[in-house]
Amino acid sequence: MQSYLDCVPCFVRQALEAARLVGGNEQACEQVVRQVLGLAAEMDLNQSPPAMGGKIHRVIRQVTGKDDPYKEIKQKFNALALRLYPDLKRLIAGSAKPLEIAVRLAIAGNIIDFGVSSSLDVAEVERVIDDSLTADWDTSLIEDFAAAVKEASRILYLCDNAGEIVFDRLLVEQLPCEKVTCVVKGSPVINDATMEDAKISGLTEVVEVTENGSDNPGTILETCSAGFRRRFDEADLIIAKGQGNYETLSDVDRNIFFILKVKCPVIARHLGCEVGTMILRKSKAFDNVADLVKGD
Amino acid sequence: MQSYLDCVPCFVRQALEAARLVGGNEQACEQVVRQVLGLAAEMDLNQSPPAMGGKIHRVIRQVTGKDDPYKEIKQKFNALALRLYPDLKRLIAGSAKPLEIAVRLAIAGNIIDFGVSSSLDVAEVERVIDDSLTADWDTSLIEDFAAAVKEASRILYLCDNAGEIVFDRLLVEQLPCEKVTCVVKGSPVINDATMEDAKISGLTEVVEVTENGSDNPGTILETCSAGFRRRFDEADLIIAKGQGNYETLSDVDRNIFFILKVKCPVIARHLGCEVGTMILRKSKAFDNVADLVKGD
Repeated sequence: MQSYLDCVPCFVRQALEAARLVGGNEQACEQVVRQVLGLAAEMDLNQSPPAMGGKIHRVIRQVTGKDDPYKEIKQKFNALALRLYPDLKRLIAGSAKPLEIAVRLAIAGNIIDFGVSSSLDVAEVERVIDDSLTADWDTSLIEDFAAAVKEASRILYLCDNAGEIVFDRLLVEQLPCEKVTCVVKGSPVINDATMEDAKISGLTEVVEVTENGSDNPGTILETCSAGFRRRFDEADLIIAKGQGNYETLSDVDRNIFFILKVKCPVIARHLGCEVGTMILRKSKAFDNVADLVKGD
Repeated sequence: MQSYLDCVPCFVRQALEAARLVGGNEQACEQVVRQVLGLAAEMDLNQSPPAMGGKIHRVIRQVTGKDDPYKEIKQKFNALALRLYPDLKRLIAGSAKPLEIAVRLAIAGNIIDFGVSSSLDVAEVERVIDDSLTADWDTSLIEDFAAAVKEASRILYLCDNAGEIVFDRLLVEQLPCEKVTCVVKGSPVINDATMEDAKISGLTEVVEVTENGSDNPGTILETCSAGFRRRFDEADLIIAKGQGNYETLSDVDRNIFFILKVKCPVIARHLGCEVGTMILRKSKAFDNVADLVKGD
């Protein structure tokens, strides 16, 4: 999806919040805000919002002199999620609908996103888990999702954030792991999961994990490594977690299941739903592929 | 008061909301947003927020080609307030504390501010009036205010917005009108009251009304006419309505009573109160003057 004018004030607000969150002093924050204002004044609205997100966080890293300013925050939320992991694992194992429960939990994990909200505590994470497990939700696509997973031979699972990656592990463990490769960022941006988080979360012990070669949020294919792009092209099912992956891949003509919690009114409008909605959504291309298969 | 970094995202948001509110098409809105981003990137944070507000609304007038883009909105809220006027006038007349009721209503009127909120309907105005009349509120300064009015020989009443100006009339009618001059903007900016609104509200029939010669929100003295500045210097009491006048005059060494409803967290922090608080506040200079009087 493109960027909208409504995204612009939010870019500026997020830049300031992020600069403060990573411990920038007032002078550094001012420098970040001024540089981001200049970039936003010249931005290409045809690009997806994470393209600007990538620019913002390059400014923040450059101004603060920190390669990975969210490192502590990521560690905190990895640790929090790992403490929850055993109970959640048992919950899935004891459920009559383990895949649905795992998808619900993967969506719950998607709230752990400091790119959108910088104020989030343990109690809120637990509340979100309860809400996600009990929410009245159209689960009709779970069967389509299960069928797509069964049919696919090469599945790419695009992870989103640290902390959340532990919840992704719970879902990945419900998939045929030999067919799945998980994808993390090539280098740190915001609280997005990197290879370090994949290791900490235990995900690397479950499936192959690869880097996408990019320092942008979401998956901006033209900024990813050639190796990742080849794997993306070869995959017959892509599972894309979080808003950033939806924003960057919604127009990509591939067979994608998007899994996310909607946290922004612009994305809600694009998806035709309310803020707060739990989303399991097939890409249009996926339907086209299904038609082709039927036509064989 | 100066501008703060927290004001910057709000400037961008307000610019976009204002451009849409005055009927700008998407292309015009984009032009407004880009120009405002450029101005904000270079802004002087030592200036008060209304200095940037003035720049934003000059851009909006220039891009939309409308000299007074809020004209219809101002007329709508003048008409709404005038419909309420007779009942409110009777309410004051029948009260044991007419000055307090009039100040409470003047604060209620201050919510009619499209510079801050673009969504406001009749029901909300009426609810705000009820809330303002019944709110638990420290009225200890009302006596100081009454005493200052009594002692003063030349009172300037700085009006804020259209619509609100009808509520200002109710308060002005409780003051010794021969000592009072009301002040409106020199030319249109946002929904700020101009001479046209002073006439429509009936204020010109009650007291002398003069223009400040500026097209900035609030009262940025260096942008006002020499004539207004002389009257400002000669006044021994200034009654300043609304956030814009607080932002621009809070550091001015004059004898000022600020009357406003706090609608912004930055101003709330500056005043040491919560958003939503009803404010009747003396300037520090006023205290100094009082000390001088006592010392006479």
